[in-house]
Amino acid sequence: MWLRNCWYVIAWEHEIPAAGSAELFTRTVLGEPILVMRRESGGFTALEDRCCHRLAPLSKGRREGDCVRCGYHGLKFDASGRCIEAPGIPLIPQKARVRSYPIVNRNRWLFVWMGEPERADTALLPDNFSCDDPAWTHKPGYLHYDTPYLLICDNLLDFSHLSYVHEKTLGGSTAIAQARPEIERVDGPGMPGIRVTRHVPGVPVPPYYRRMRPFEESALLDRWFVYDFLLPGTLLMHSGGRPVEDAPEDLSRAVRLHSCQTLTPETQTTTHYFFQQSHPADQGDEGVTEGIYQSLITAFNEDRDTIVAQHRNIQRKPDAPMLALAIDGALVQFRRLLAQRVAAEHQETA
Amino acid sequence: MWLRNCWYVIAWEHEIPAAGSAELFTRTVLGEPILVMRRESGGFTALEDRCCHRLAPLSKGRREGDCVRCGYHGLKFDASGRCIEAPGIPLIPQKARVRSYPIVNRNRWLFVWMGEPERADTALLPDNFSCDDPAWTHKPGYLHYDTPYLLICDNLLDFSHLSYVHEKTLGGSTAIAQARPEIERVDGPGMPGIRVTRHVPGVPVPPYYRRMRPFEESALLDRWFVYDFLLPGTLLMHSGGRPVEDAPEDLSRAVRLHSCQTLTPETQTTTHYFFQQSHPADQGDEGVTEGIYQSLITAFNEDRDTIVAQHRNIQRKPDAPMLALAIDGALVQFRRLLAQRVAAEHQETA
Amino acid sequence: MWLRNCWYVIAWEHEIPAAGSAELFTRTVLGEPILVMRRESGGFTALEDRCCHRLAPLSKGRREGDCVRCGYHGLKFDASGRCIEAPGIPLIPQKARVRSYPIVNRNRWLFVWMGEPERADTALLPDNFSCDDPAWTHKPGYLHYDTPYLLICDNLLDFSHLSYVHEKTLGGSTAIAQARPEIERVDGPGMPGIRVTRHVPGVPVPPYYRRMRPFEESALLDRWFVYDFLLPGTLLMHSGGRPVEDAPEDLSRAVRLHSCQTLTPETQTTTHYFFQQSHPADQGDEGVTEGIYQSLITAFNEDRDTIVAQHRNIQRKPDAPMLALAIDGALVQFRRLLAQRVAAEHQETA
Repeated sequence: MWLRNCWYVIAWEHEIPAAGSAELFTRTVLGEPILVMRRESGGFTALEDRCCHRLAPLSKGRREGDCVRCGYHGLKFDASGRCIEAPGIPLIPQKARVRSYPIVNRNRWLFVWMGEPERADTALLPDNFSCDDPAWTHKPGYLHYDTPYLLICDNLLDFSHLSYVHEKTLGGSTAIAQARPEIERVDGPGMPGIRVTRHVPGVPVPPYYRRMRPFEESALLDRWFVYDFLLPGTLLMHSGGRPVEDAPEDLSRAVRLHSCQTLTPETQTTTHYFFQQSHPADQGDEGVTEGIYQSLITAFNEDRDTIVAQHRNIQRKPDAPMLALAIDGALVQFRRLLAQRVAAEHQETA
Repeated sequence: MWLRNCWYVIAWEHEIPAAGSAELFTRTVLGEPILVMRRESGGFTALEDRCCHRLAPLSKGRREGDCVRCGYHGLKFDASGRCIEAPGIPLIPQKARVRSYPIVNRNRWLFVWMGEPERADTALLPDNFSCDDPAWTHKPGYLHYDTPYLLICDNLLDFSHLSYVHEKTLGGSTAIAQARPEIERVDGPGMPGIRVTRHVPGVPVPPYYRRMRPFEESALLDRWFVYDFLLPGTLLMHSGGRPVEDAPEDLSRAVRLHSCQTLTPETQTTTHYFFQQSHPADQGDEGVTEGIYQSLITAFNEDRDTIVAQHRNIQRKPDAPMLALAIDGALVQFRRLLAQRVAAEHQETA
Repeated sequence: MWLRNCWYVIAWEHEIPAAGSAELFTRTVLGEPILVMRRESGGFTALEDRCCHRLAPLSKGRREGDCVRCGYHGLKFDASGRCIEAPGIPLIPQKARVRSYPIVNRNRWLFVWMGEPERADTALLPDNFSCDDPAWTHKPGYLHYDTPYLLICDNLLDFSHLSYVHEKTLGGSTAIAQARPEIERVDGPGMPGIRVTRHVPGVPVPPYYRRMRPFEESALLDRWFVYDFLLPGTLLMHSGGRPVEDAPEDLSRAVRLHSCQTLTPETQTTTHYFFQQSHPADQGDEGVTEGIYQSLITAFNEDRDTIVAQHRNIQRKPDAPMLALAIDGALVQFRRLLAQRVAAEHQETA
């Protein structure tokens, strides 16, 4: 069901306590509880948050340098997951260790590799550049979902929902739903995925954009949304809008945005959602950054309400069929791509 | 388990928002979420509350005339359940429709037919006349139960519980439990069921009755309870009490009541309960109506407490046997009748 | 999974309402709801809290002398569980009865026998003498656990956790974890079990002990913990500490304690925990008794936090293996002993 040999975001970098802090950070990814610690020398450690002895979470124990000591019977594990001390036990068994996960900080997103460690390959990381680029500014966001992650992928793969779910926030016009997007496969060099390109000509300014530029009340924009949605569940999007009277190459009065969003399954039915939408650092002050963030939070709560209600309906009748429509091209392709990869992974293992 | 080819009450008429309202009413019956709307021209629409596209509830969308538009991707359905608009899709597939249910307003109860629509037959509606008769007055009631509906049927089929569950409210005397009721089959012309006739001679006045008539402290009544309990779960009852010194045909000082109560399974373990108890419109003012309503609410909460506790015990040990006693005649007959009908329905389908 | 032919504590004696009280006490043991009543003539009654008729809990009914009447349809049961009255039914069937359980009050613990009644044998009761001995003083304790009882047995069978879980409360020194305990089988005359003897030489005074004796800041103690952990889950412990400079037989400045603790499975995943720790009645006033009680409550909440977190981890991955270490000797032996007894019991039944 889940792809394992890939990177999943487990946290924003700023969520992890300082190396000197007594606090321990834990989060569950693909059903596995993972302890994340900052190393004293820099870098990060990700360990299975489950002592090999009696399965207590190490995050309830305490940090000792770059090691962690279980709070139940005192076993101490180093950053590689090896047990290096066990009170009352002279000879520690070789098997006394917890799993450690490859972990990488790329542009303030901390990625863990959930498959075979030797296959971890940073060339497969998505290009979330705007999360850490002086030319772009954002406020990082996180939401927790009580629904399976695929329903949220579906949502992000069909922006026609903007006209309805976000009618009064991000959307602003039924023209978004009416516009037919181009759908293409994206194949490497990183993870494969789907590219969606949608142009929406001559539409009113969404309330959201007005926080960035002083458009006139009656202004009409040509809007664009161009994004890659990559396995296992990362959206990287350029979007924006330009007054209809401006030439396509003239962005002098345009709104330009770059957004990085990613979904990490927590369990079969719950999901982590990390997101941001950046604006050019030289366009707009802190008020604009905060405004964009608040717009996202409002809109993503609208999505969540809808998807939670959809999920409840699915649970009521798990075998109810969905009717595929022409607008589902991107999500159907993405689900197929994911299923192929998962099947291939199972075959390799077997 | 459930009879499908029959009418179930989904709502009191007054629960459904006006045709011009933005509010949408949804309720689940036999596990199926159903959207109920008032038509602009009068009458009602009942649609599956689950968009055929991605299964989101239509009740989270918005009303447009007598149509409803899904709040996720904007599909629009007419009152027959047919999709008549799908943004971004020129040709709407024939299969794009949601189920519509026959719905009838009979005396302020809205009934939906959960089986094959072509078999919907208003001759099978129960005679809940006092819900909408100028000669009778009541205040409508609704309770939600977190227990299976059959346990509540059981309760209503054996009034010996009045002496214990409602000792201090409806009951008032152990004589009710002592009195042996007559049990008969009722067969048509509507749904079949069980008729229970119970006479309780010479008992004290229940506190409840004193709100209607000025009985003396020491008064003794001959009480009666005559009700039909019809498939799938509707109680229609004449009850009352007459001073023992009055002749049977003399009702001049009697309390006379008519009650309509019905149970609609929401899910396997939850139930809707619609009820009222009417008094003659020319006997008693609003205070009496409210008093009767409050008595019912109090008593039906006593029932619910008892049945919830019973259900919890059953869940603890689902195979614990029940010991059938002589007082269980009516409920044993009713359960058998229901089981036969359900089995027949399954056979027809297979 | 559970041993049935043995005694389980269902309540502290003081929890049971007086014979004249209208209140009814119910608690679930091994998944069975049990009503416990004090008899008017002294002694106790334990009945299945589930009417044989429609399975309603008798504890929702009312007491009538030493009998209880069901609050649903009024069946009345005597102290042996026999139905002696059923309103509206002239001849009560022989089968109309609820199960009654042997119940014994031993030193203020009320024990019920959950297996075959004819095998109930008070010689198998544990010696919880300090619960009711004028030479000892305690304040009784109770905690409810949302975890299976075996995880709590594990906890009590390995005191090395004191150094970590209770670092700042009962423990006070890693020396406890370092000290190697002696593990022996205890076989009769009562229930079998495991004896654990742990001496911890020359350690600081735990904060807890200072509430009993005025030790100097720098004082060092020889501490001991000697306990039997008996089937199905009872801990009986002598513990204490003596200044290192005192001779082993000189207890004049020692802290001496006796503790009785017992675990009763409520359901497969929840547990009752009854406990006390006594000090000599002539050493320490009410403040000491209360102080010991508060120390226990604090520490046992630490245990519960740890075990709940451990249980959550186990539920996440039920097949995750535990790595047995040398410190697990006692709990491994206990689990084996329990498994043997349960298997034997199943064999007898089959």
